[in-house]
Amino acid sequence: MAGNSFGSLFRFTTWGESHGPALGCVVDGVPPRLALTEADIQPWLDKRRPGQSRFTTQRQEPDAVKILSGTFEGQTTGTPISLMIENVDQRSKDYGNLVSAYRPGHADFTYDAKYGIRDYRGGGRSSARETAARVAAGAIARKVLGPEISIRGALVQLGTEGIDRTAWDWGQVDENPFFCPDASAVARWTEYLDGIRKAGSSCGAVIEVVASGVPAGWGTPLYEKLDSEIAKAMMTINAVKGVEIGDGFAAAALRGEENADEIRLVDGQPQFLSNHAGGILGGISTGQDIVVRLAVKPTSSILIPRQTITAAGEETEIFTKGRHDPCVGIRGVPVAEAMLALVLADQMMQHRAQCG
Amino acid sequence: MAGNSFGSLFRFTTWGESHGPALGCVVDGVPPRLALTEADIQPWLDKRRPGQSRFTTQRQEPDAVKILSGTFEGQTTGTPISLMIENVDQRSKDYGNLVSAYRPGHADFTYDAKYGIRDYRGGGRSSARETAARVAAGAIARKVLGPEISIRGALVQLGTEGIDRTAWDWGQVDENPFFCPDASAVARWTEYLDGIRKAGSSCGAVIEVVASGVPAGWGTPLYEKLDSEIAKAMMTINAVKGVEIGDGFAAAALRGEENADEIRLVDGQPQFLSNHAGGILGGISTGQDIVVRLAVKPTSSILIPRQTITAAGEETEIFTKGRHDPCVGIRGVPVAEAMLALVLADQMMQHRAQCG
Amino acid sequence: MAGNSFGSLFRFTTWGESHGPALGCVVDGVPPRLALTEADIQPWLDKRRPGQSRFTTQRQEPDAVKILSGTFEGQTTGTPISLMIENVDQRSKDYGNLVSAYRPGHADFTYDAKYGIRDYRGGGRSSARETAARVAAGAIARKVLGPEISIRGALVQLGTEGIDRTAWDWGQVDENPFFCPDASAVARWTEYLDGIRKAGSSCGAVIEVVASGVPAGWGTPLYEKLDSEIAKAMMTINAVKGVEIGDGFAAAALRGEENADEIRLVDGQPQFLSNHAGGILGGISTGQDIVVRLAVKPTSSILIPRQTITAAGEETEIFTKGRHDPCVGIRGVPVAEAMLALVLADQMMQHRAQCG
Amino acid sequence: MAGNSFGSLFRFTTWGESHGPALGCVVDGVPPRLALTEADIQPWLDKRRPGQSRFTTQRQEPDAVKILSGTFEGQTTGTPISLMIENVDQRSKDYGNLVSAYRPGHADFTYDAKYGIRDYRGGGRSSARETAARVAAGAIARKVLGPEISIRGALVQLGTEGIDRTAWDWGQVDENPFFCPDASAVARWTEYLDGIRKAGSSCGAVIEVVASGVPAGWGTPLYEKLDSEIAKAMMTINAVKGVEIGDGFAAAALRGEENADEIRLVDGQPQFLSNHAGGILGGISTGQDIVVRLAVKPTSSILIPRQTITAAGEETEIFTKGRHDPCVGIRGVPVAEAMLALVLADQMMQHRAQCG
Repeated sequence: MAGNSFGSLFRFTTWGESHGPALGCVVDGVPPRLALTEADIQPWLDKRRPGQSRFTTQRQEPDAVKILSGTFEGQTTGTPISLMIENVDQRSKDYGNLVSAYRPGHADFTYDAKYGIRDYRGGGRSSARETAARVAAGAIARKVLGPEISIRGALVQLGTEGIDRTAWDWGQVDENPFFCPDASAVARWTEYLDGIRKAGSSCGAVIEVVASGVPAGWGTPLYEKLDSEIAKAMMTINAVKGVEIGDGFAAAALRGEENADEIRLVDGQPQFLSNHAGGILGGISTGQDIVVRLAVKPTSSILIPRQTITAAGEETEIFTKGRHDPCVGIRGVPVAEAMLALVLADQMMQHRAQCG
Repeated sequence: MAGNSFGSLFRFTTWGESHGPALGCVVDGVPPRLALTEADIQPWLDKRRPGQSRFTTQRQEPDAVKILSGTFEGQTTGTPISLMIENVDQRSKDYGNLVSAYRPGHADFTYDAKYGIRDYRGGGRSSARETAARVAAGAIARKVLGPEISIRGALVQLGTEGIDRTAWDWGQVDENPFFCPDASAVARWTEYLDGIRKAGSSCGAVIEVVASGVPAGWGTPLYEKLDSEIAKAMMTINAVKGVEIGDGFAAAALRGEENADEIRLVDGQPQFLSNHAGGILGGISTGQDIVVRLAVKPTSSILIPRQTITAAGEETEIFTKGRHDPCVGIRGVPVAEAMLALVLADQMMQHRAQCG
Repeated sequence: MAGNSFGSLFRFTTWGESHGPALGCVVDGVPPRLALTEADIQPWLDKRRPGQSRFTTQRQEPDAVKILSGTFEGQTTGTPISLMIENVDQRSKDYGNLVSAYRPGHADFTYDAKYGIRDYRGGGRSSARETAARVAAGAIARKVLGPEISIRGALVQLGTEGIDRTAWDWGQVDENPFFCPDASAVARWTEYLDGIRKAGSSCGAVIEVVASGVPAGWGTPLYEKLDSEIAKAMMTINAVKGVEIGDGFAAAALRGEENADEIRLVDGQPQFLSNHAGGILGGISTGQDIVVRLAVKPTSSILIPRQTITAAGEETEIFTKGRHDPCVGIRGVPVAEAMLALVLADQMMQHRAQCG
Repeated sequence: MAGNSFGSLFRFTTWGESHGPALGCVVDGVPPRLALTEADIQPWLDKRRPGQSRFTTQRQEPDAVKILSGTFEGQTTGTPISLMIENVDQRSKDYGNLVSAYRPGHADFTYDAKYGIRDYRGGGRSSARETAARVAAGAIARKVLGPEISIRGALVQLGTEGIDRTAWDWGQVDENPFFCPDASAVARWTEYLDGIRKAGSSCGAVIEVVASGVPAGWGTPLYEKLDSEIAKAMMTINAVKGVEIGDGFAAAALRGEENADEIRLVDGQPQFLSNHAGGILGGISTGQDIVVRLAVKPTSSILIPRQTITAAGEETEIFTKGRHDPCVGIRGVPVAEAMLALVLADQMMQHRAQCG
């Protein structure tokens, strides 16, 4: 397929480059008669918006979304919803010296290898700026899922620094510039990331996203399992190098009896006694929280020179001046939330189609 | 979509339950004029076949594959290739006591939640037996990829036991019952897994799969990235709970300058000095080895009783007599290889379509 | 995509060649808990089965269908249903002289042009024998649609011979070897087709298929309109060269006021006063009968020699001895019914997903 | 699937309503390094543009297309191309009286039946105005196909008036307001359509589209046959009620020997002696001209009152004042050309993927 669409029944297609006039997406398959205006989408974009702390790129983008189609008098009509976000602060000159050299860790080399041409301005299509379109689409997905399903994300590791999971407080996530759920870690993380930033370096991160309220039964085995769709979705996010569900990699070291999520009846309803599975068995939701973690590599744009070559086949060194996030994982949190919402909205509709 | 197909241009659809008369797949989109007979497929099935050591299920299945269509005089014709493997050793009686109780860690509960009906015999459709069809399809994918691309897998962690990566020897992988690449670990692993097995327990594992010879430029950004397709593919394998590419989760703790794969010219050709990226940047292959790891949870079928409920809503205990793998991760190795081959064959054709 | 699948939510994939060991299909996405055994499918296959009159090929195939997966204790389980029909009466020797010469009107030339290889035995993959798999899948589609939706087909033109539409009687369709709804035409058609047959020639036909009981609201604009899906479906049937909905080509000669299907209220319900539209407006069903006609070209296998060339590039003449239908349109009737059922089942599920 | 996309490898997704701020499409999968600017697209839009004669709607739309993404320095980059056309002359007041009554022949009734909501302004999403996006996408498809493939359309029947096919002259098509290839018919057609227009009525039409230069071998049997993809594509065009390939419905009355396109060698190359098949056998191109005809029903918007009901369930009469095309078939010509180009570009890429 062509590559820039995701989902089948609830399906979105994104377009746009970092330094083009605009970016956007078309969200297709949306059920009709959902209340929807720009005001339902903008808050999620504001959460992802750059320039809000010294730990995110200083590019100033209002990221104001416009709905160009698919709604009528404040309601969805079932027709495709076109969303557009204009690019305002492109500053193409910043990237003048990156025209020919391949930045290590970036997609410069591979886009040239594949297409034989690339828009080098700000990373072109491979820029994380594209994720604004996902967040916008994700806001519509949340509408489809309704208020009983909540999708929340947090940063659980910043570079080498972790959290105290016993101190987890969702209420803290929006109170610090890291989406960190552990208030006691914030000072430490601040100091750590300031050090990284001042060194002209960057660091990776681990994001955790949790969906609560998903009923048992969603997911389409065997090749559109809920977890495989989630894994795919998360791995499409820039800089993500790993995805795990529930205990994930730690499950490899468990014994069968440790890993089993036993079931009892509570008030006549099935109740799992643990959630090693992360809310998914056989590719189908169990009704428990769906728990996903994703590993984000360190930002590839750093001030420390690295060895590379040019498109013309010459050796050189490169470093990235200008604006960048010292940890792209931070702004990845609302993106990961959006991707989980988008997968769930699609799977909800799939389930309704076959079993509803 | 309907769920039992994978891939778009090179596309396979599997069918069959653990205790039905047969299982199989239809492989569609195969290029014409490739030499193909059962003899090209059978060796890969033999590698996955149960009953070959005391560390795999004692179910005795010859797993003899038949080609029912799509070839003519030993060559592919471009029409769909139907493969069938008959089930021989079903022993449905073994599972008589599992009719109504939901086995923790298995898909029993969720299939009932989704479909309101399930074939409980041997796990029905959710049985790992289905992976035989993938391995068969994967053998065709290898044909499509040609001899210059090699895809090899190994077990790099068995429960709590790891390997010495400096001792890695691909030649060892087929010399022990674990697909272990480190000869020095085999005795230790044997003792460890014997202990697990005798305790009626099970353990998880980590598989590593490597594709060599993939040229730079494969993968379809942004939503069919090579790594997102791989992540999806791996997560469709039974019991897999995590996938990572290159450094994966370890990348989260790196700094930007550590994670950068620098590039030099060697004999005028680009040469990466490291492979933290696992051969993929921006969703497109770099030309380096593609390195994937997947975490497999412990086999859910164990002899140790666990608490659960029945479909009728009663609390009970359950344990699984009969045949099972103490570590399903072992036989997951050829399955993971097959899935990687299947993704690559599809992406090769996608690349040829758009950029060829 | 790979080409041998149809539908998205209710999706089937066929495989098999005319002279291979078997043919079949995998039907995926079927809702669970529908009663289904071979006895639900076989009668539709029997209707299409060859060798039932002198006006169809004398190839003797029992066309006995086997369900290999996807049901349990007589009910669908929501997992893929694999259907297989063994080929019994292949007689490959009949086709010995057709190995190298391209039969005009057949796909011999084009399959070679595309694939550079073809299974010439009985037309290989391009044989109308493949339609048995469609009819089998169509029987499942009828189950999904339920008893309130009826799908019936008839032959309304045989070569140059038409019917008296005022004499239309569905009850006559199964009473003659032509699926002709006009009893008064049967003798005339018999004489006509006997003439064609004895001359070693063949003729074309027009099939009409009608779906009754489809509620208003099915169809997915703009590119999966109910009529565009139907047109696609019908055009996939061997030898079909045209499709029309409602008045079809005749609508081109109407004026707007003639073509308008006016609406009144009858017992408070909308009632159309005519059905020029054939039950579809804007790609969505109106609740009226869906009326489809398809033109079938004359059978290309005839005893009258025609000029052609060989694969080796030599001019020659060819005629087709052996078994063939003098009018393939006749046996196309149950196939067209099946295709309409398959489209409707898919669109029913699509509608439920988005608007249900 | 979601409905507003067409094609698989070369894939476009359209959005926009008649009276929204804009309409557009995203064209995905486009090969890189094709020269492309707005100047390559605009001429095709100009051909379809309304208001150019008294025989098309007087709505004045410049239909100026903007490329928002996917090109760099005048070349395609392989990333999605977003095209936007702003709506300028909406005049929503014209439609004030059509808010509640269902216009016979239009999609008003069915959109309400499906979605329970509709944008009644100018037909909303079901307006033929959406076809501007197709024409824009089609211009890119022509670029992909290259200059050796020409796709041309003409009107061969206007209401009850036909042409003299022996007088066919492609050079005449752009010399009259009907895209009529027979100069001798123009005066007669003018008089005929003036009569229709002055009576406040409308008429249907038959369009013929021909692709020349398509090599043998394109098309993906069995369910993505070249002709079935074309039939689908054409039937998605507003008001189209029938599609035929080559001899189409006339083939039903032929005998086998008449319909056979015999083959000879001319200069060592295969040469068909006739083209009853319309350039397609077994769903694959023969290398001859691909010939498609489509029947367009009369414009449903007429000044002559028709009986209908309102959404509130009351009987009423309706007629459509304001701007409309007396024969929508005329402006359907460039749309049909675009759809054929879009199908062929997709199939070219499909062919290259599997057999290239």
